[in-house]
Amino acid sequence: MKVSNNQANGIHIAYIGGGSRGWAWGLMSDFALEKSISGKIYLYDIDFDAAKANEIIGNKLFSREEYKDRWQFEAVDSLEKALTGADFVVLSILPGTFDEMEYDVHAPEKYGIYQSVGDTIGPGGLIRALRTVPMYEVIGRAIRDYAPRAWVINYTNPMTICVKTLYEVFPDIKVIGCCHEVFGTEKLLVEAAKKYLGYPDTLRREDIEVSVIGINHFTWLNYASVNGDDLFPAYARLASEYAESGFNPAGEDNWLNSYFECSNRVKFDLFNRFGLIAAAGDRHLAEFVPGDWYMKDPETVKQWKYSLTPVSWRKEFQLRKKKEESRMLVSGEKEFEVKPTGEDGVKIIRALCGLEDLITNVNVRNQGQVSGIPLGCVVETNALIRRDSVSPIYAGQLPPELNGMVNRHANVQNAIVKAAMARDLEMAYRVFINENRMNLSLKDSRELFDTMVEGTRAYLGEYK
Amino acid sequence: MKVSNNQANGIHIAYIGGGSRGWAWGLMSDFALEKSISGKIYLYDIDFDAAKANEIIGNKLFSREEYKDRWQFEAVDSLEKALTGADFVVLSILPGTFDEMEYDVHAPEKYGIYQSVGDTIGPGGLIRALRTVPMYEVIGRAIRDYAPRAWVINYTNPMTICVKTLYEVFPDIKVIGCCHEVFGTEKLLVEAAKKYLGYPDTLRREDIEVSVIGINHFTWLNYASVNGDDLFPAYARLASEYAESGFNPAGEDNWLNSYFECSNRVKFDLFNRFGLIAAAGDRHLAEFVPGDWYMKDPETVKQWKYSLTPVSWRKEFQLRKKKEESRMLVSGEKEFEVKPTGEDGVKIIRALCGLEDLITNVNVRNQGQVSGIPLGCVVETNALIRRDSVSPIYAGQLPPELNGMVNRHANVQNAIVKAAMARDLEMAYRVFINENRMNLSLKDSRELFDTMVEGTRAYLGEYK
Amino acid sequence: MKVSNNQANGIHIAYIGGGSRGWAWGLMSDFALEKSISGKIYLYDIDFDAAKANEIIGNKLFSREEYKDRWQFEAVDSLEKALTGADFVVLSILPGTFDEMEYDVHAPEKYGIYQSVGDTIGPGGLIRALRTVPMYEVIGRAIRDYAPRAWVINYTNPMTICVKTLYEVFPDIKVIGCCHEVFGTEKLLVEAAKKYLGYPDTLRREDIEVSVIGINHFTWLNYASVNGDDLFPAYARLASEYAESGFNPAGEDNWLNSYFECSNRVKFDLFNRFGLIAAAGDRHLAEFVPGDWYMKDPETVKQWKYSLTPVSWRKEFQLRKKKEESRMLVSGEKEFEVKPTGEDGVKIIRALCGLEDLITNVNVRNQGQVSGIPLGCVVETNALIRRDSVSPIYAGQLPPELNGMVNRHANVQNAIVKAAMARDLEMAYRVFINENRMNLSLKDSRELFDTMVEGTRAYLGEYK
Amino acid sequence: MKVSNNQANGIHIAYIGGGSRGWAWGLMSDFALEKSISGKIYLYDIDFDAAKANEIIGNKLFSREEYKDRWQFEAVDSLEKALTGADFVVLSILPGTFDEMEYDVHAPEKYGIYQSVGDTIGPGGLIRALRTVPMYEVIGRAIRDYAPRAWVINYTNPMTICVKTLYEVFPDIKVIGCCHEVFGTEKLLVEAAKKYLGYPDTLRREDIEVSVIGINHFTWLNYASVNGDDLFPAYARLASEYAESGFNPAGEDNWLNSYFECSNRVKFDLFNRFGLIAAAGDRHLAEFVPGDWYMKDPETVKQWKYSLTPVSWRKEFQLRKKKEESRMLVSGEKEFEVKPTGEDGVKIIRALCGLEDLITNVNVRNQGQVSGIPLGCVVETNALIRRDSVSPIYAGQLPPELNGMVNRHANVQNAIVKAAMARDLEMAYRVFINENRMNLSLKDSRELFDTMVEGTRAYLGEYK
Repeated sequence: MKVSNNQANGIHIAYIGGGSRGWAWGLMSDFALEKSISGKIYLYDIDFDAAKANEIIGNKLFSREEYKDRWQFEAVDSLEKALTGADFVVLSILPGTFDEMEYDVHAPEKYGIYQSVGDTIGPGGLIRALRTVPMYEVIGRAIRDYAPRAWVINYTNPMTICVKTLYEVFPDIKVIGCCHEVFGTEKLLVEAAKKYLGYPDTLRREDIEVSVIGINHFTWLNYASVNGDDLFPAYARLASEYAESGFNPAGEDNWLNSYFECSNRVKFDLFNRFGLIAAAGDRHLAEFVPGDWYMKDPETVKQWKYSLTPVSWRKEFQLRKKKEESRMLVSGEKEFEVKPTGEDGVKIIRALCGLEDLITNVNVRNQGQVSGIPLGCVVETNALIRRDSVSPIYAGQLPPELNGMVNRHANVQNAIVKAAMARDLEMAYRVFINENRMNLSLKDSRELFDTMVEGTRAYLGEYK
Repeated sequence: MKVSNNQANGIHIAYIGGGSRGWAWGLMSDFALEKSISGKIYLYDIDFDAAKANEIIGNKLFSREEYKDRWQFEAVDSLEKALTGADFVVLSILPGTFDEMEYDVHAPEKYGIYQSVGDTIGPGGLIRALRTVPMYEVIGRAIRDYAPRAWVINYTNPMTICVKTLYEVFPDIKVIGCCHEVFGTEKLLVEAAKKYLGYPDTLRREDIEVSVIGINHFTWLNYASVNGDDLFPAYARLASEYAESGFNPAGEDNWLNSYFECSNRVKFDLFNRFGLIAAAGDRHLAEFVPGDWYMKDPETVKQWKYSLTPVSWRKEFQLRKKKEESRMLVSGEKEFEVKPTGEDGVKIIRALCGLEDLITNVNVRNQGQVSGIPLGCVVETNALIRRDSVSPIYAGQLPPELNGMVNRHANVQNAIVKAAMARDLEMAYRVFINENRMNLSLKDSRELFDTMVEGTRAYLGEYK
Repeated sequence: MKVSNNQANGIHIAYIGGGSRGWAWGLMSDFALEKSISGKIYLYDIDFDAAKANEIIGNKLFSREEYKDRWQFEAVDSLEKALTGADFVVLSILPGTFDEMEYDVHAPEKYGIYQSVGDTIGPGGLIRALRTVPMYEVIGRAIRDYAPRAWVINYTNPMTICVKTLYEVFPDIKVIGCCHEVFGTEKLLVEAAKKYLGYPDTLRREDIEVSVIGINHFTWLNYASVNGDDLFPAYARLASEYAESGFNPAGEDNWLNSYFECSNRVKFDLFNRFGLIAAAGDRHLAEFVPGDWYMKDPETVKQWKYSLTPVSWRKEFQLRKKKEESRMLVSGEKEFEVKPTGEDGVKIIRALCGLEDLITNVNVRNQGQVSGIPLGCVVETNALIRRDSVSPIYAGQLPPELNGMVNRHANVQNAIVKAAMARDLEMAYRVFINENRMNLSLKDSRELFDTMVEGTRAYLGEYK
Repeated sequence: MKVSNNQANGIHIAYIGGGSRGWAWGLMSDFALEKSISGKIYLYDIDFDAAKANEIIGNKLFSREEYKDRWQFEAVDSLEKALTGADFVVLSILPGTFDEMEYDVHAPEKYGIYQSVGDTIGPGGLIRALRTVPMYEVIGRAIRDYAPRAWVINYTNPMTICVKTLYEVFPDIKVIGCCHEVFGTEKLLVEAAKKYLGYPDTLRREDIEVSVIGINHFTWLNYASVNGDDLFPAYARLASEYAESGFNPAGEDNWLNSYFECSNRVKFDLFNRFGLIAAAGDRHLAEFVPGDWYMKDPETVKQWKYSLTPVSWRKEFQLRKKKEESRMLVSGEKEFEVKPTGEDGVKIIRALCGLEDLITNVNVRNQGQVSGIPLGCVVETNALIRRDSVSPIYAGQLPPELNGMVNRHANVQNAIVKAAMARDLEMAYRVFINENRMNLSLKDSRELFDTMVEGTRAYLGEYK
C-alpha cells in the first residue's frame, strides 16, 4: 500500500466469507463510489464457488468505464492465500447454515421463549456462538500467522463473541467490530431535529453528533447534539408523543411489511425507563431485557409493533433469492446497480490509510473507554480513527440500573467464549440455564439445551 | 476500656435500637455466658420506654449472683449520650413499623410479584431502603461526631444498604455488618460430613472451614473443608439425593411449621445450577434470582418447600407476643433465660479487644476481597478480626454467570442508596422499574410504586 | 449565550486572575481575530487595579473599528460577581508573589538541588502547591455556588495540583487544564517532517496528528503522524543526529539568549532512553527525572543547553516590564498589538459552544484514558471537544520503566493535595522528604523544609 | 498423600535445587522436629552429585532412632522424575554461579553504584533476573506438565521475578514465595515490647501479630500488635532512641562481624521517614531507595552500620566451606545437627495438608490484597493458609509517597520479566538504564550493561 497526494493505492484486502452476498456487494458499491482508494481484494469462502461468483461480479463492475482498473477481485482457496500481505481483512461469514439457525431461533418457542433475531443473545445467540468461536479461532490464528499487522474489520454476529475470540487467540490483533444499528437511531434523531427544532430536510445522520456506549445490539447514546443544540429534549418529546402509536419516518406501518423494520415503540419505552437513547433496532433491543417486557409471546410482540423474524423467511429471501440474483449478475442477465449503502466501511479504510480522520462507533475491548464494565470486555463506543490507529473515545458510565443489566450480559458473553474455547458443553450449559431470559426449570433447560445442541451438532465436532 | 490478662474491662457499648427485643436479649444472654469482658451498655431507641424496659431486664439479669456486676445497662434519650465514649456501637433497628412492611411485602402481590421476606431486595427491599437510608444518615453522622473511633456492628436489614449508607456519610467509619445466615449452611455441611464422610455427632459448625463470597443474603461458599477433607463432594451428594424431597436435619417437614424454616430445595437447585453452595436461607435466596424459578406464585413456593412470611404473622409473633414477654420480664412474672444464641457478636467484640483472633463472615466495602464486583460495593466475605482491626480475606471471584447476577444487584443497591440520599423519588422509581423481578409494564410499575410509596409515606417526609 | 448560524453570541466569561498580563492580553488578541464569538468578560483579580487596567485595555481594543462591539470587559471586586451566570471561567493566577517563588526555586540550591522552573514538581513545586491549594479551594467552591454549569479552563501552575483541587471541592466541576508545552514538540515534528520526509515549508503544527499521554510537563507522544506518514522514524533521526549538538529551528544557540528556550538535547536523550517523544520544554522535563541525569549542577545544565531560570529575571521581565507596558497601554502611550498567540483557548471555547469539533490535549482526571495510572489522577491526553462536552481519547499505556516514574509523581501529587487540603505541614513534610530528587538526609531535609515554609509563611496562615 | 487423625502421611515432595545446602539441610532439620507429617523427598539439581550427597545426608538422618522411617530421600536426574506425583514442590536454586554474581554485584562499583546484596533489584538484580527467568520458564512448564495440582514453595531470589515468571508460563500454578526477612523485624518488635511495655523474656516472634504489605525485600508492616497492645508507639520509641547508635539485641556491634547483620539504623530512618515499619534486613531495604540516602559509597554504608556483602566472601563461606561440610556429613566425619531454623516451611506444609490453619506472609500475585499496586504484580502480604488453599489477607494501601516508590519497582520488575521472556536484551537495557539507582549517562549505562551482560553471557545463550 502506498499513500500520497490524498490517494491510497495498492491496498490489499482479504475478504473472508466473500461468498456472503449482501455485505460483499454493498462494499463493491461503496468502493465504486470512492476514488481515493484502489487495490486488490482476495475473496475467501468455504464455498469457493460463491467466492468465485463474487470475483466475476466484482471484476465485471470494475471493468466499467467509470470505475476502470481501480479494484481487482480474486477468489482464493485458502486463508493463507487471502491473508498474506493483507493491509485489511474484512470478516463477514455466516456461522453454519440457516438450518442450524432454525433450531437456534425456533426450538425455544416450545418452552415459551421467543426470539426476534436469535443471533446475538439468549439461547439462540449462545448456540450460534458455540458454532462460531471455533471458526474464529481458526481465522484469528491465520491472521496472527499471515497478516499480523493488518486491520481487521468484523461484521459477523454475534459481534461481541467474534471480536472477543479474536483477542483471545491473538491478543495483539488490530480488530474493530462494525455495526450499522446505531445509524438507524441517528436517523430518528434527524427526524426529531426536523420536527421539533426546525432543522431543514437536508439534515443528514452524519450531521448528528453522538456519544455511543454499551455492548453491540444493546447500545446506547448518552449524548446527541447537532450544531449548538442538545437533541435529548427533542427525542424525549418524540418518545413521549409516539410512545403508544410508534413512529416510523417512512410510513406508519412499514414494520408490518418488513421483518427488519420496527415502529420504535421499544426504543421509546426504553428511553422512558432509563433516560438514555437506545441505539439499535427494536428487534435486537427487546432480546436484552426481561422477557415479559416486550417478548412474552407473539401477541405482545405485535403490540410493540415489531417482528419475530422467522428463519423460513431468511431461507427464502436471504438465501434463495440472493443466490438467484448472484447467478444473474454473473451471467450478465442482471446488471450490478451501484448505490451508496450508508455503511462506514470505506470511510474507515480511508481513515486507517491516513486520508482523513473519522469518528465512528466500533466494537473493541474495553481499555477504559467505558466505566462500570470490566476491562477486557468487548464494548461499543465511538473511536477516533486515524492512520494505522483506532483510539476509543471515553464514553462515561451507564446509569446503574442499566449498567447492572449490561454487566450481566457482558459476564455471560465472556463465559460463552470461555466455554466454547474449552469446547466444554457442560460449561456452556451452565451459562445457558442462567441466561437473562431463561426462566425454565433445570429439567426443561436440559431438554431444550440438548435439542438445540443436537440441531447444531454438525458444527460441534470438537466439543466434548 | 482496659485490656490485660486476657480480660477486657470497662467496655462501653452503645446499643442503638435498644428497644429491639430479639437481638438485645440474645446479646444479654451471650454476654452472661462470657466472663472475659465487662462494661456498660447504653441503650438508645426512638421508643424510650422499650429501651427502659431492656435496661431493667439487663440490670436484673446481671444482678444475679453468677453474672454479678459484669454489665450495667442504662437507657438514654439521645444518640449523643449513647455514643459519646463508646468502644462499640451495635445497630439493630426496625426501620418503620410492621404497618409499612405490610405494604412492602404484600402490595406487589396484586401484580403477581410475591416476596418471601421483602426486606432486602425486590420492590419491598427498595421501599424499606427508602425509609432506612435517612435514618442511617443520622446515625452515621452521630457516630462520626461522637464516636469516630468506635467499632460499629450492624444487624439491621437491608444490610448492604445500611452499611453502604454509613460509609457514604462517614467514609472512615469502622463498621462491619454481621449476619448469621451463613451459619445455617455450615450446619448443613456438618450434616453432609456426618452422613457421607463418617464424622461423629460431635462435629459442630465451628469446625467447618469455609470461604464466603457474595452479597448479604445472596452469599456463597466457594470452599468448604473439615480437617483434611473437601466438603464439596459430600454437599454435591446431598444436593443430588435430596433435590426433590428437600432435606432438613430437624425433621422432614418443619418448614411447614415455621415461616423461617425451609427444606433447602432452593439451595440444592442453586448448587446444581452454579456449582457453588448458596449460604443463606431459601427464603432469602429465592428473592435474588429470576422470579419464575422459585417464586412464580404461592403454589410454586409450596413445591419448593419454603414460605412466604406474611407480615400479619410478624405482627402477632414478633410484635405482640414479644411485647408481652418484655412486660413479664420487667415485672418479674417471667425469669430471663440464659442460653447461647450461636451468634458471633461476643466473639467479635473479644477479637476486637485483642483477646483472641477470629475469622468470620462480615459485610464491608469491597476493597479487593472480591474480584469481579466493583470496589466500594458492600460485599460479604470472611475477615480476620484482631485487636482494633478487621482485614477482609481474599475470596476469589464468582463464576461469570453468577457474577453477572450479583453485579446487577450490586448496581441496583448502589443506585438505591444514591436515590435515597438525594431524597429523589423519581430516581428511586427508575431503579424500581428495572429491578430483577419487576416484569411489569411502565404503567403497572408506576401504579405499584405510587401505592407502595403511599404506604410508607410517614417515613418519607424529606423526599421530593 | 445563544448559538445559531455558526455564531455564538452573548457569551459570559469570568476571567479569574484578570490582572495577569501575559495570558489576558493574549486571549484578547485571539478574541479579536475570531469573529464567530462575542460577549462579555468579567475580570476578577485580588489586585483590583490590575483587573481595572485590563478592563480599560480590553474595551479600548474592542472599540476599534475592526473589532467593534464584539467583547466588553468589566473589572469586578468579587468572585461572586465574576462568576454568576458565567458560561466559561478562565483561571490564570499567580499563587503568591515572586518573592515566595524566590524561596521555592533558590533555597534548595544550598543543598545541591537545582531547579530550572520550580513551579511544578520538586521542592519548589511542592511549596508552591501548599500556597495554591487553599486558593483553589476558594475558587472551586465559588464555581460550585455561582457557576456550577460553566466550563472552567485552567492555565495556572502547578497544573495537576490546581485541577485536582478543583475536583476535590466540587467533584462535578467541568474543568480542563490547558497547557501549550505540547505545541513546541509538534513544531519540532514539523521540522523533522520537512527535513527528512520532504514536506514543504507550509506545514504547520496543526497538521501534525499526535496522541498525548502523561502528566502535565512530563507529557509524552506515543503517536505522531502526518497524512499517511508515521513521524517516529523521522524524529528518531533528528534525536540521533542532534543528540550532542542539540537542535533549534530558530538558530543554533537561542537557548543562550532566553531562559525559556532550549536546544532539545534533554528531549532527544529522553527519546533515546524511552523510545517515546517527550512533549514539554527541556526545563520542565529535566525536573521529573533523576537529578543526576540533567541537573546535577549548573555546569551539567549548561552542557545540556538549557537554563535554570532565576526568579530575579522574572521580577525584572515578567513583573516590572509588564507593569510598565500595562501603564502605557492604559494611558494610550502604546497601542495594543493584535497577533495570534498560537494557543488553543479560543478554539476550545468555539468547540464547547458547538461551532466546530476540536481534538486537543487537556488535563482532566483519569477516567480510563490512560492505562497504568490510577483512576482519579489528573492526566494529560487528547480529548474530543464538542458542544458542552469534553471526552478524553484513550491514549494507551506508557512503557513500564517510564510508567513507574510517572506513577511515583502522580502518587506524590495526590499526597500534596491531601496534605494541603488538610493544612497539615507534617504530612507535607513527609511527602517533601521522599520526593524524586530529594536525596538529602532527614536532618538536611527538615532544615530545608523549614526554611522554605518560612519563606512562604505569609500564605500558609491556615496551616498547623 | 493421606490425611487422618491429625497426621499427613505419604507426602511426596519435589525439592528442586536440592544441591543447595543451607535451605535443604534446614528443611531436613525442621522435618525431623515435626512428627505429624511424613513421606518421600525427591531431590533434583543440575549438579546431580550435590543432590546425591543430600540424599545420603537425609537418609542418614532419618535412619536415626528418633526420626526413623518418617522421610526418605532420593536424588533423581530429571524434573519429570522429581515432579510426577508431587504434592509439594520446593524451589531453591542458585541461578548461575558466584562467578556471575561477582559481575552482578561488583561491576557497577566502577561507576559509583554500590550494592549490599545485588540479587533483587538494581543492576545486579536485573542481570541475575535475565539468567533466572529462562530457568523458571523451564521449571514452570515442567510443573504444569507433571505436577499441575502441587503446591509450589519458592525460596529463590529474585523472589518477585521468579514467582511472576511461574505465573506467566502456567497461570493456574499454586505457588507461594516464602521469605524469612519479615521475621527479623518481628524479633525487633519483641525487643520493643519487652523494653517499653514490660513484656517478659518469654515473648516470642510468633506472639507478635502483624499486617504485611509491599514487595519482597521492600516489605512493610502497617499493623503490629501483641495481646491488647498496639506496638507502633513502642517501635517509634525504639526508632527514635536508637536512630543514631543503631540497635541490635544480640550486642551493639555484631553487624561488624557478619555480612548479614545490621544495626537497624536504616530501618529506623525509614520509619522516621514513612511512619511504617520496614520489614527486611537493612541490606535489602537500602537497595530500594535513592542511592544517596544510605549507599552513596562504602563510607556512607559504614555510617549506617551495615555491610556490602562481597561475593568473594560468599565463595569462601557459602561455597567452599559448605562443600566441605557436605563432604563430612556424607562421609560421616561430622554428624548432622538437628535444630529448628525458625522458618515457616514445615508449618506451611502442615497447613496445606489441613492439619492446622496458619497466617503468615507470602509472595503471590496481587488479586486485590494490596490497593494502590496494579493487580497481577507479585506482592507480599499475609495469607490464610488452610487445606489446599492460600487466601491473601487484605493489607490496605501504602502511604502515597511510599506507594509511588513501590510502584516504580513493581513496574520495573514486570518489565524485566517481559524482556527476559522475550529474550530481548535491548528491552532489558531500556529498563536497566531507567532503574531507580541508575544515575548514569546513556554512554556509561551502555558500557556497564555490556560489561555485565558479558559477565553472565554463559547463561544468556537464548538471548538476541
